[in-house]
Amino acid sequence: MNKPPIAIAIHGGAGVLTPGLLSPQDEDAIHEALRQAIDAGHRILAAGGTSLDAVEACVVSLEECSWFNAGKGAVFTADGIHEMDAAIMNGADRSAGAIAGAHYVRNPIRGARAVMEHSDHVMLAGEGADRFLREQNQPQVANDWFDTELRRRQWQGNRSSSTAPSLEPSHADHHIEETAVNNNSGHKFGTVGAVALDSHGHVAAATSTGGITNKRYSRIGDTPIIGAGTWADDRSAAISATGHGEYFMRAVVGHDIAARMRFAGRDLHRACDEVVHQELKTLGGQGGVIAVSPNGKTQLSFNTPGMYRAWRDDYGQLHTAIYAEDDRVHG
Amino acid sequence: MNKPPIAIAIHGGAGVLTPGLLSPQDEDAIHEALRQAIDAGHRILAAGGTSLDAVEACVVSLEECSWFNAGKGAVFTADGIHEMDAAIMNGADRSAGAIAGAHYVRNPIRGARAVMEHSDHVMLAGEGADRFLREQNQPQVANDWFDTELRRRQWQGNRSSSTAPSLEPSHADHHIEETAVNNNSGHKFGTVGAVALDSHGHVAAATSTGGITNKRYSRIGDTPIIGAGTWADDRSAAISATGHGEYFMRAVVGHDIAARMRFAGRDLHRACDEVVHQELKTLGGQGGVIAVSPNGKTQLSFNTPGMYRAWRDDYGQLHTAIYAEDDRVHG
Repeated sequence: MNKPPIAIAIHGGAGVLTPGLLSPQDEDAIHEALRQAIDAGHRILAAGGTSLDAVEACVVSLEECSWFNAGKGAVFTADGIHEMDAAIMNGADRSAGAIAGAHYVRNPIRGARAVMEHSDHVMLAGEGADRFLREQNQPQVANDWFDTELRRRQWQGNRSSSTAPSLEPSHADHHIEETAVNNNSGHKFGTVGAVALDSHGHVAAATSTGGITNKRYSRIGDTPIIGAGTWADDRSAAISATGHGEYFMRAVVGHDIAARMRFAGRDLHRACDEVVHQELKTLGGQGGVIAVSPNGKTQLSFNTPGMYRAWRDDYGQLHTAIYAEDDRVHG
Repeated sequence: MNKPPIAIAIHGGAGVLTPGLLSPQDEDAIHEALRQAIDAGHRILAAGGTSLDAVEACVVSLEECSWFNAGKGAVFTADGIHEMDAAIMNGADRSAGAIAGAHYVRNPIRGARAVMEHSDHVMLAGEGADRFLREQNQPQVANDWFDTELRRRQWQGNRSSSTAPSLEPSHADHHIEETAVNNNSGHKFGTVGAVALDSHGHVAAATSTGGITNKRYSRIGDTPIIGAGTWADDRSAAISATGHGEYFMRAVVGHDIAARMRFAGRDLHRACDEVVHQELKTLGGQGGVIAVSPNGKTQLSFNTPGMYRAWRDDYGQLHTAIYAEDDRVHG
């Protein structure tokens, strides 16, 4: 009898990631962080655990790592603080939870799961979300616990290059999500996420982000929007996205991929590529997605020069990658 | 040469609306309020105006009318204030704007449009949204301007019948959205919305709500979620939803209707009915939708005993209705 398939993939943000931007030492450190994060989830799947636990474990690992713009290492808002968004969804029953603009929960993805499991609601925001998560005894930290020197430099560089941070289209560059690089030249999309299929046949997705450097007005992006940045349905696929959130919201990226599979008969690969390379491109949206389907397929699609990512292939082999042509195989 | 078709429909919330719940005088007043609201949009379409202007005008009219749970007449939160959500979307280019948890903008739908037209963003929340709308010179009111005696009684009745307002599933009744009735027996879903097709062939959708009586933790429902409560795409349809928001978010109702039309070849009628009577019913979600398609069709589907609604039929005749079998034709 064949063992039922399991599958897992993670991302740590997409953007202008071209060879030479990172030092070899930094590249190695990022590959290692991606390997540790996907292993945290894979161990759970291999032991017969649930996809929900697996995606949470991956995202917690990425949130705790300051290389990525989520949890520790989240970018600074215009007010010099951190406001975090996260969502999680269970493909088995399409239950979902999300938080937007949370300030004190150490692991935003655990906060999203608490909303899913311990409230009647799908989405809580700002100080209301903070209060709920405190009452739920979710581990709390001071907001400056999320500070890192790199993010502070990015924020200060961003402020000094923009005399009046604004929402004007001409300043759009300043609102693009960024991930950790040692210089400010690489404006990129900083979000982390995971998708998984467990041995029980259920898929799940989780996504977490600090949003965009210097953000104002409590802007909410696609990450915590069920259907846009995060989607899971056992009838089609689990999807986690990273990119210029506004376009991903307007394209309802996750649900659109799933709908093409359900209603147009597309396979996972083609559905992801159509949305990332056609729908999003037409609107002008840069970024990517990771996805798994209940039949054990894994897909990673992006229209940017690179995407921090890791996945297990059909033979169970672990891969990590940063650039488009990248592929580091782990023994 | 045939004149290009125009189409328009509005809703004022769905729920346990059964004949006898409202007095004949109140019924008449609601029919009249619906007639005025749809006329505000229809006049714009008939004069060659845009669907975007038409849906905004309809929703402004419904927001200004205290019968409906949006703008003036919005329900009270647990803290005794009003927090309003709204979204608008243009099917021509899928641009969209939304606000969640806004406190001071007199017409939340105009606030959503300001986000769409005057920011780089799709969604702003809470005090950040308040600040942006103030800077945009959107007309401001004190939060208690939205107070009505009816909503205060509903809130107080709700509080006294629930010793500890909570998010526990057993208290789910208290979190169901309500619209104005003269007693508290009818827990209903209070949201207003409009969809329209203009003579240029473009569709648009707009939705606005005060949320759920006694809501806590800055809960965000489906109304401001692009793809869930609000969706517009010239390739398929414009949709505005009203119902138990959490289920509508998990079903991504608006985008699912559109996807069935694009990818499964469903017509508007069947796509709406499948989502409202199958997808939502399976999850347990009560409510309804209004929709128009670029070929001039109009559809209203709901799985509740009633839905406040108005529409123009294929012959241009105006209808208003409250209950399922209801149909008041206007000369």
